[in-house]
Amino acid sequence: VIGEPRRAAVLAIGDELLGGRALDTNSGEIAARLLELGFEVERTLVVGDDARGIERAIAELCSAYPLVVATGGLGPTLDDVTRDAAAAAARVPLVRSDETLEELRALFRRRAKEMPRSNERQALFPSGAQLMPNRRGTAAGFRLWVEGGVLAVLPGPPHEMREMLERELLPWLAVTCGPGECFESRVYGLAGIAESAFADRAGDWMERAANPLMGVTAHCGVLRVSLRARAATREAARARLELRGAELRERFAEEVFSEDEPRLAHAVGAQLIQRGITLATAESCTGGLVASMLTEVPGISQVYLEGWVCYSDRAKELRLGVPRELIERHGAVSGEVASAMAACAARESGARAAVSVTGIAGPSGGTPEKPVGLVWFGTSVDGALRAFEERFPPHGRETVRLFAAHRALDLLRRHLPPT
Amino acid sequence: VIGEPRRAAVLAIGDELLGGRALDTNSGEIAARLLELGFEVERTLVVGDDARGIERAIAELCSAYPLVVATGGLGPTLDDVTRDAAAAAARVPLVRSDETLEELRALFRRRAKEMPRSNERQALFPSGAQLMPNRRGTAAGFRLWVEGGVLAVLPGPPHEMREMLERELLPWLAVTCGPGECFESRVYGLAGIAESAFADRAGDWMERAANPLMGVTAHCGVLRVSLRARAATREAARARLELRGAELRERFAEEVFSEDEPRLAHAVGAQLIQRGITLATAESCTGGLVASMLTEVPGISQVYLEGWVCYSDRAKELRLGVPRELIERHGAVSGEVASAMAACAARESGARAAVSVTGIAGPSGGTPEKPVGLVWFGTSVDGALRAFEERFPPHGRETVRLFAAHRALDLLRRHLPPT
Repeated sequence: VIGEPRRAAVLAIGDELLGGRALDTNSGEIAARLLELGFEVERTLVVGDDARGIERAIAELCSAYPLVVATGGLGPTLDDVTRDAAAAAARVPLVRSDETLEELRALFRRRAKEMPRSNERQALFPSGAQLMPNRRGTAAGFRLWVEGGVLAVLPGPPHEMREMLERELLPWLAVTCGPGECFESRVYGLAGIAESAFADRAGDWMERAANPLMGVTAHCGVLRVSLRARAATREAARARLELRGAELRERFAEEVFSEDEPRLAHAVGAQLIQRGITLATAESCTGGLVASMLTEVPGISQVYLEGWVCYSDRAKELRLGVPRELIERHGAVSGEVASAMAACAARESGARAAVSVTGIAGPSGGTPEKPVGLVWFGTSVDGALRAFEERFPPHGRETVRLFAAHRALDLLRRHLPPT
Repeated sequence: VIGEPRRAAVLAIGDELLGGRALDTNSGEIAARLLELGFEVERTLVVGDDARGIERAIAELCSAYPLVVATGGLGPTLDDVTRDAAAAAARVPLVRSDETLEELRALFRRRAKEMPRSNERQALFPSGAQLMPNRRGTAAGFRLWVEGGVLAVLPGPPHEMREMLERELLPWLAVTCGPGECFESRVYGLAGIAESAFADRAGDWMERAANPLMGVTAHCGVLRVSLRARAATREAARARLELRGAELRERFAEEVFSEDEPRLAHAVGAQLIQRGITLATAESCTGGLVASMLTEVPGISQVYLEGWVCYSDRAKELRLGVPRELIERHGAVSGEVASAMAACAARESGARAAVSVTGIAGPSGGTPEKPVGLVWFGTSVDGALRAFEERFPPHGRETVRLFAAHRALDLLRRHLPPT
């Protein structure tokens, strides 16, 4: 018999989240990952950096939910009071972890810096808490029983939160909360398809009662499709997952770019490294964003040779050798110039593959014929050239650039020779 | 005598907000606007599209706060249940507004469309509610007394929410609730100082009872310091803010890079544009991240000429003209090579300023003498060269790269000629 999903709540802490000066991206991410383990987040509460308010929120949530994940307020400064509030809610004192203090001191020693006194606060934890180390920063997290529920406290900076969630909290939850039923989950990355088009073609796979349960999140042209199968045994859950996974890969053969790596740049980069295909980039409107995404991939230096950010027309001409007549005749945002940029980048660098982007990111620079959001792409692979046009919705400069960088990576992926 | 701020809560409704498929931008906006009227939002609660869950949330919040602003769940489809939940929480029936129904019908007639039956639901309101018309869509909002507090319900789409907030709710609150106390706030961006070191030097400015209240958040080498002053009049609040702001700028004269622009790249980019200082970038380990951050700034094309992503030693030599002997003698990660990269980038591009980055982002590539996290920077401004060394904590490739990109921008900023 398959049980009810386990209920959970998220508590996001920080004046900047409450007042609109920063957006809370952590809560949604935590909810999505918890769901894969069978925990359904029913509410997210956002409170400011006020010890009494945080304490009340923890007490309320922990008495209503078996699992509460809090994020934020673990910094070294006096306005970070989550540790104090958690201790108060659990009615235990704060105690110092000598081990953590020593680790903090060692960290500062390695950087040849003196540890400021305020960092000592980060070695204080509610008595009885189980610590979760932070590999990306100085704020360790912890788990604590409060009012019969588990309170897990993660740091606020997203990259620190994510690492601790993935490496510490989720594995612990998977083991500790054990099988009421068994879950198996997997994430697919898709590109080159809109969320609504995906939903239309996915049909009843997306129903709330479907097993595996399918979840989709879209981010500027990249879809993260998660599947979560549940069954009485792990093997049965896995079998369900495999079946739907195979159907998904068949129905979306063009669009699926990876299993278990929803970051497009990482998936494409890994493929280039594995196949030993060298690459160069030539960017205008994305201004180094494609290069920056690719160089986030560990080991990419084996294949990524170099990149040009040719923001001015002069740079396109002088650095890459794009003929000036071509720019004058067709404009810098054109298929001709995009092709030439890719061809020149491949030739200059000696790379097997090259990708180029040239477009109008806005907010100004658009014309009726060439509006904000118009972007041309070029790819060159083993001497073969392709050019592509895209018109992205003019939802702001940042969005157009992200869409364009993702599209460039996807077009490059689709142009690679078959394995 | 200054009264307590009036307390308020925001309730954001929607499965997509809870599960991370969409970000809740409404709550922060509502909180910021309410604060100007003297209402302090103490918590934001996010719940899914579940009638019982919404009803419980409304009842809880309205019994604790004199003002609760809810947003979302007013659409025509069956999964939009906020009106039902509000009526249930207030223990009143839903009644039809014939006037609203007629307006809806007229709206569809003007668009030469037949009104779907489902839209009829949008003419139902809790009995006794005061309606707030929607000039941007079909979902009217309403105000209602629940448990002794005011519940105001706004639509979820941000442009509809905003219009109703500005035109209907805020003017009503200003008249009905009269003048409370006044708030003024401002945000400073600081770079080149750790959060803990800032706290040590800021001292009692950071206490919870301080007025202005100070909040600090850190992101990979950039601090966002917010000040919020309160007083009986707007002028008095502003005076308090000015005073502390002047003290902050004096005590952290080196570190403050902007007022009201906490994004370092945007502040540096704006300064370059305003002063007409042309720029080029030469990046190794950051792989285009500095260029990508700078080119996010609207209008940067006026001064940003071009950038090189010289990932390989060959590219450093061939593209920029860094002498091979220099790389062989000192290594690619060295002050000599960083300086040469900046000098060459300035010379090749003809830009007045150039910044370079070369380092070891990891996870591999480190040695005892040159560990992961070691990064050298070069800046060239009007022919003058500087080189800097930094050892960032080895908290992962992504973190090292972000720290390094921010540091590069900050070093460039500090090298610019005085205004």
